Amino acid sequence: MAISTKPPTGTRDFLPEIMAQRREVMEVVQEVYQRYGFLPLETPAIENLSTLLGKYGDEGDQLIFRLLHRGEKLSRLLEDDPGGAVPGGAVRGGAVRESQLADLGLRYDLTVPLARVVAQYGNQLPRFFRRFQIQPVWRADRPGRGRFREFYQCDADVIGSESMTVEADLLSATCEIFDRLGFLDLRIKINHRQLLFALVDAAGIPAALETEALVAMDKLDKIGADGVAAELERRGIAADAIEAMQPVLRDELGDSNEALLEALDARVGKSERGAKGLEDLREVLRLCERSPAAGRLSVNPVLARGLSYYTGPIFEVEVPDLAGSLAGGGRYDDLIGMFGGRKVPACGIALGLERILVVMAERDMFSPSAIGPQVLVTCWSDDLAPEGLALATELRQAGLRVELYPEATKLGKQLKYAGNRDIPLAAIMAPDEVARGAVQLKDLRAGEKHDCPRDEVTTLALKLLGDGQ
Amino acid sequence: MAISTKPPTGTRDFLPEIMAQRREVMEVVQEVYQRYGFLPLETPAIENLSTLLGKYGDEGDQLIFRLLHRGEKLSRLLEDDPGGAVPGGAVRGGAVRESQLADLGLRYDLTVPLARVVAQYGNQLPRFFRRFQIQPVWRADRPGRGRFREFYQCDADVIGSESMTVEADLLSATCEIFDRLGFLDLRIKINHRQLLFALVDAAGIPAALETEALVAMDKLDKIGADGVAAELERRGIAADAIEAMQPVLRDELGDSNEALLEALDARVGKSERGAKGLEDLREVLRLCERSPAAGRLSVNPVLARGLSYYTGPIFEVEVPDLAGSLAGGGRYDDLIGMFGGRKVPACGIALGLERILVVMAERDMFSPSAIGPQVLVTCWSDDLAPEGLALATELRQAGLRVELYPEATKLGKQLKYAGNRDIPLAAIMAPDEVARGAVQLKDLRAGEKHDCPRDEVTTLALKLLGDGQ
Repeated sequence: MAISTKPPTGTRDFLPEIMAQRREVMEVVQEVYQRYGFLPLETPAIENLSTLLGKYGDEGDQLIFRLLHRGEKLSRLLEDDPGGAVPGGAVRGGAVRESQLADLGLRYDLTVPLARVVAQYGNQLPRFFRRFQIQPVWRADRPGRGRFREFYQCDADVIGSESMTVEADLLSATCEIFDRLGFLDLRIKINHRQLLFALVDAAGIPAALETEALVAMDKLDKIGADGVAAELERRGIAADAIEAMQPVLRDELGDSNEALLEALDARVGKSERGAKGLEDLREVLRLCERSPAAGRLSVNPVLARGLSYYTGPIFEVEVPDLAGSLAGGGRYDDLIGMFGGRKVPACGIALGLERILVVMAERDMFSPSAIGPQVLVTCWSDDLAPEGLALATELRQAGLRVELYPEATKLGKQLKYAGNRDIPLAAIMAPDEVARGAVQLKDLRAGEKHDCPRDEVTTLALKLLGDGQ
Repeated sequence: MAISTKPPTGTRDFLPEIMAQRREVMEVVQEVYQRYGFLPLETPAIENLSTLLGKYGDEGDQLIFRLLHRGEKLSRLLEDDPGGAVPGGAVRGGAVRESQLADLGLRYDLTVPLARVVAQYGNQLPRFFRRFQIQPVWRADRPGRGRFREFYQCDADVIGSESMTVEADLLSATCEIFDRLGFLDLRIKINHRQLLFALVDAAGIPAALETEALVAMDKLDKIGADGVAAELERRGIAADAIEAMQPVLRDELGDSNEALLEALDARVGKSERGAKGLEDLREVLRLCERSPAAGRLSVNPVLARGLSYYTGPIFEVEVPDLAGSLAGGGRYDDLIGMFGGRKVPACGIALGLERILVVMAERDMFSPSAIGPQVLVTCWSDDLAPEGLALATELRQAGLRVELYPEATKLGKQLKYAGNRDIPLAAIMAPDEVARGAVQLKDLRAGEKHDCPRDEVTTLALKLLGDGQ
């Protein structure tokens, strides 16, 4: 049986055309984040299981890829008989637990490694550590449409400050990234976890059912206000509490951010959590007034975001004609300190990189490839091959991307190769041209041939490529 | 016991300063390869074990990280009693083999994945597939100084042609990369596997001992000609054969490439393999004459390169005052076709990326960081924070990297923060400046303060940063 040459289930090969798209997006992200003072970080794919386990809930723990022990460590486990077979041979396993077979796993997200890095290198890092990280993560999830076992995450976080300027700066950077990628009419929903809790509390939902209520409300986009009301009931929330939540669920509190905030103030402004939530949101809106996020923020009092670790403002990035979000984040002041045993304030945003790539491909939003060759230097004969190398060298030194056809086959075949690969120009040097110090430069888009003195060919190639753009 | 926050043994965290160095090198590599018509490829970290096993010898197979089965698949293996405990609980292992515990592993190099990609997507790829790939690989090796379990490889290969223009083009690209990185006096040793075999044969070493002889000769740099002679003897090679090899081992065949090739021709030019080796080497030298590799190539008839899969020219990149090589490669026409059952010619070069980074750091060859913030916008008071965001937005739109100090603490503390982080400029807006439409721009390198109209601050910042470089 032939070995399958497909990549494993849930993983992908990125061929050059796709790589060009991925690079294009990542370069924009990187460039913008660096202008916003974020610094790059990379952590290893492999982490100790002691770092990973217990951070993502039971379900998450099950999805962590574990690295099997090797060699003696494994054979000792699998052997009953110390003199028995070596690994690879059949051996008695004895009483073996999963936890004994591995102590390393693959990175599951970029947040836990960040927390580890902050604990490990705290004193080497800036007091306000603004980092971005673009790396793959692995989850042994059931693969499906758009769901992979190996996929990239793209996180930007600011560690060390409780100031709302952090939120404002993150939101501004996010707006600029999406603008640069070509997404129009970006909207950012913003809410606050404390405000949410205050609303739930004010409706008369007991503290023990707060999380239940938030889980139900988080489904509003999918199941509507009636659906959420039914779900709240199913989760044991009293009818009068549900009734009290109705104006919130039905978006009846106000149309503008100002009106909404006033209505919310009337409802929960007197509670400690409500006041804190409103104060923070007003501050973020005020700070964003003269930034790229200006006019993009919509207060949305039901936005909950699934992850329970958020403690302050939360946000989600949407474009009007697309269901679901393209990015999301918020403040999570209790997580980053987990390995250091102290509280470390933090706020971050994760771009849905794989989703962004899918949407951009569907909408044909990518630039024409800027990675493929621009000139094919053809090969007339083995004798003249050094001429080709010399010409290619010159063109490359001028910054052009140049491929050398490696074999002296028929010219027509070489030009066809260039055409199939969308290489715009082909340089031809037959003995006649070499003798009179010339080059034929063929523009394959226009089908035009230019006879050109040898020492002007770089200038002409640059001109033709410039004209064609 | 506190959990260790170090990265696992043999792996590394790359903090921003190190990331800047890694990016600098990778960007040069990428830019040059693309100008040479190479296209980027990425493959998943996870491969099927059926793809990986048996490709790297028994020793290599032992170093492959395997991913433990999960959930039911694992519990079925570990349970004797089908109604027994779930994974995580103690269970009877029964007769379990290592091979039953995993069918996925981590990528061990970039060549086997390339062979898989060529077999899988052959018809979608250009007939001459020039790809480069810069990705981490994993090996469960004993970690040591400069030896890691997770490290980057950087390969460029041309698939599909037997022409020596491929070798010439790869060597030219390599020279340009090292030039751009700042390595002076680059030398490339070049030899040919067929020539090596012919030399060994001509000395009277029997075919069965060819590989033994090559392994010994490969140590010449480390143990000298006498050492190699002793090693040849130890490996069962006859005294007269060793005697016949002495002029080769002692580098007595000639000083120039021409003299060497002539002497080699006299020795083995009449054998089929010798003639082929000499023809190819002469062709590579001829082709490189007018390329960036010109004058850099030294024929070296004892260069063997460890990997047995090479079939044609082989090369190693050296700098004069550094032991060992910074890159190496060659032609390997029998490997890439392994999954497709057909012969596919190939030639490639691997840059020793991690080694290059170590050497460049030791020699202080990196540019001043071009990723850290250039301006710190300070925060005078919460009231004036939006002014800061507005100014930061303007400076960022001009392309500057700008960090916003998030909190309204004492100005001295903020300026100290900028100084500690080597941020060259700090922008200060006290109420007085805001009132009269001005900004104080402090150059922390020179210790000079510039009072500047608000609408000229971007121009001044660009000027100050330009002057400082």
